[in-house]
Amino acid sequence: MPPDPVPGRVRLVGAGPGAADLLTVRALRAVQSAQALLYDALVPEEIVALAPAACLKVQTGKRAGRPSLRQETINRLMLRLARRGLDVVRLKGGDPSVFGRVGEEAAFLAARGVAVEIVPGVTAACAAAAQFGFPLTHRGEARRVVFATATLKDGAPCLDMAAAADPQATVALYMGGGAAPDLAAALVAAGRSAATPALVLESVGRPDARILFDGTLAGLTAAAGFRAEGPVLLVVGEAVARGLARGGAGRIEAAA
Amino acid sequence: MPPDPVPGRVRLVGAGPGAADLLTVRALRAVQSAQALLYDALVPEEIVALAPAACLKVQTGKRAGRPSLRQETINRLMLRLARRGLDVVRLKGGDPSVFGRVGEEAAFLAARGVAVEIVPGVTAACAAAAQFGFPLTHRGEARRVVFATATLKDGAPCLDMAAAADPQATVALYMGGGAAPDLAAALVAAGRSAATPALVLESVGRPDARILFDGTLAGLTAAAGFRAEGPVLLVVGEAVARGLARGGAGRIEAAA
Repeated sequence: MPPDPVPGRVRLVGAGPGAADLLTVRALRAVQSAQALLYDALVPEEIVALAPAACLKVQTGKRAGRPSLRQETINRLMLRLARRGLDVVRLKGGDPSVFGRVGEEAAFLAARGVAVEIVPGVTAACAAAAQFGFPLTHRGEARRVVFATATLKDGAPCLDMAAAADPQATVALYMGGGAAPDLAAALVAAGRSAATPALVLESVGRPDARILFDGTLAGLTAAAGFRAEGPVLLVVGEAVARGLARGGAGRIEAAA
Repeated sequence: MPPDPVPGRVRLVGAGPGAADLLTVRALRAVQSAQALLYDALVPEEIVALAPAACLKVQTGKRAGRPSLRQETINRLMLRLARRGLDVVRLKGGDPSVFGRVGEEAAFLAARGVAVEIVPGVTAACAAAAQFGFPLTHRGEARRVVFATATLKDGAPCLDMAAAADPQATVALYMGGGAAPDLAAALVAAGRSAATPALVLESVGRPDARILFDGTLAGLTAAAGFRAEGPVLLVVGEAVARGLARGGAGRIEAAA
């Protein structure tokens, strides 16, 4: 028996990397018309403020090391709000399909008769490349792009090292802060050249984005862990060195 | 000796996957204020029309099998327009850092004293996932995302098969139209299970997007090549099957 029709709907929306003008037009309109907004901790206040004053706003957490609502709680809350007839926007940093659990949330809602729409966003690796002026692919040199998370599992990097060791791949590791030196060591152990350029970036896409490390895998291996307030991205590959001079004349400034 | 200062500037801008409301707000403003617009063939007329009437508009081609301006010609044209003092926007489909030659263009311009800014965009794989309702990552199952081009070189797929055969990777192959069956066969030969879900999509992100194939690698291997007018994307991985029912109640409609 199909579930009863639900009067409201849920849009799972990518907020992009954190600057309000890096929302897509479709995402901006979704936020501006939301009746309920559930947003991750990575979404800045500036973007949350775009929702109507009467909109119910719930911060769901979802940031490493901070308390957050359980996934099941978030799912149930979205369902309850949609059943009340509200236009619900679930706002996630970056693109919702890349490390955003969009599959779990969409499947939960769709199985209960809720109309779901997904709005894509600019993912952190693309924002990093634009802001710091390096390509993710480069003809004959960086033919592939790999996105992975960089969490450690039982002390070992949870990453397919064969893929990441591919010399023609640019590898973007999401949330790689403290683990970056260990991941660099693991990449070298898996066969990636220690001379491969590596860049550790914080709060990519936002006006306060900064470079935590700019060097090679060998240098990164020797670095201490990074303490960062914002989300951290580790990018490894020859293309990283093809950027415009960082901090020099060609520096791409973060446009707010 | 540093190059003479150039009065104009060039912004290398991602147009996203083809729907005007999937431009970022920053990209929209760039197009709306452009004095010269150089755009790839993949950028739809609807987006080109957002530029001011007085803006010089040049279609640069860059579409498989069609005549297009040579890269060197495009570079020289951007430089000449910037030297005339114009605000130049170079508009590329998707995200400029992913298979967009942003590295070559930015390096050429920066070396000649032109201020360059890069504006990221929604890349085709993220747009496909949103429009057709599947995640690119899924907990415990699709831990990595690989973007690659799917051109054949001397008859053989130009792709690192070890990376693409990783059972926990979702692989998005850009521009894989006619080559999709050959690529599927190559993936299976490299060790990826023939039962892996595979999806061939045309004109992702646009209102006229359509599914050319929805099945497994085994089925795709046996398929004839696809004739498509729009750009083609091949997506392979377990996460693809986690989509909302395609064509059913949960179908994500392409919002125009």
